[in-house]
Amino acid sequence: MRLIYRGKTKDVYEDGDFLIFYFKDSLLGFNGEEDTGGNEVVGEREGKGSAVLKQAEFFFKLLEKNGIKTHFVERIDKRRAKFLKTERIPLEVIYRFKAYGSFLRRYGEIVKPLQELDIVEFTLKSDALGDPLICEEAIEKLGIASRKEIEEMKKTTRKVAQILGEFFRNKGLEILDFKLEFGRRKGGLLVIDEISGDTMRVKKDGRVLKQEELLGVIG
Amino acid sequence: MRLIYRGKTKDVYEDGDFLIFYFKDSLLGFNGEEDTGGNEVVGEREGKGSAVLKQAEFFFKLLEKNGIKTHFVERIDKRRAKFLKTERIPLEVIYRFKAYGSFLRRYGEIVKPLQELDIVEFTLKSDALGDPLICEEAIEKLGIASRKEIEEMKKTTRKVAQILGEFFRNKGLEILDFKLEFGRRKGGLLVIDEISGDTMRVKKDGRVLKQEELLGVIG
Repeated sequence: MRLIYRGKTKDVYEDGDFLIFYFKDSLLGFNGEEDTGGNEVVGEREGKGSAVLKQAEFFFKLLEKNGIKTHFVERIDKRRAKFLKTERIPLEVIYRFKAYGSFLRRYGEIVKPLQELDIVEFTLKSDALGDPLICEEAIEKLGIASRKEIEEMKKTTRKVAQILGEFFRNKGLEILDFKLEFGRRKGGLLVIDEISGDTMRVKKDGRVLKQEELLGVIG
Repeated sequence: MRLIYRGKTKDVYEDGDFLIFYFKDSLLGFNGEEDTGGNEVVGEREGKGSAVLKQAEFFFKLLEKNGIKTHFVERIDKRRAKFLKTERIPLEVIYRFKAYGSFLRRYGEIVKPLQELDIVEFTLKSDALGDPLICEEAIEKLGIASRKEIEEMKKTTRKVAQILGEFFRNKGLEILDFKLEFGRRKGGLLVIDEISGDTMRVKKDGRVLKQEELLGVIG
């Protein structure tokens, strides 16, 4: 198996037509503080990697059950799982139920914290550039995704928003935002990367849950 | 007359149902260097204010002649002009013929300098926030403009792009980008603010022209 990507929260190996993800114990944050919406590594906590993988498996299965196509194949052990290889689209597709995190920092006083949004946003996946926001016309003209693919990503993301929104509502929790990534495989799009506490923010009693807390909710 | 706004390149006074703009000699730039696409004052040059007003008058008349509704009423003297009062929409609507300036800084290596784009982008008008990019869903959900207004702004901006593109082509020049602002008046939208060398970038022989040089082109 060949290491093809060393990421902040996981390493990715290639295995024939599959990818093997190894989930690390690194914690994401913003300005040195732990924040599941953050984009920098702010520390480590034992068991975090296996907690994220447990969540990823759970959410991928939840989406598949609801008709969303994903790249998930199976979990191998506590820290590793097997996925279908795809041609990755370098975008993060963000669904914002409510205004939080970078959206508040970006637009300041014109938005109220936790104001209802229900919008899809795209950012260009680039650590060097700080994952800048990118609008649909630019995505198309820069050849990142076609108009048809943009529409499909938005439609799938809204469907995932319904599924996750309902799931957390039934648990007495509130999901504030989540992000998806997409890859091309055999002419169609699959939800790729992971879906876990690292890619969503869930609120309980006025506080955003940490990954391990989220795991308690799922189990 | 009451001073209602002190801006980087102009001061705005209220006069009944009209606004009076006083054009200053300040130069716009980026990182201390003169750049007509910049957003900070980097110096002053005598005659710059009157040059910009001459251009604004010229371009507003050019647009009006081509069926675009604007807030321009008349020039008063070398430095002042009269405009219709409107309810200003706090957006900059940017048309990018080619990739230049902030677009290149924002998206780095995935875009080639001067790559053809022909796209409309919106930024939120806020010096404090650095005029952040904002996509259509957010504009609508934050109540900045309605879906209908967004469509009208895009349509008008594309029409202005045709007019300006043809104008400069006929002069043997190339316009790279420009920005418009819009205001509401009596249920419709008008192009407001100014249209001049301060709000567009025009290339001649591989170099972006300064305001005074642009004036030579128009005359």
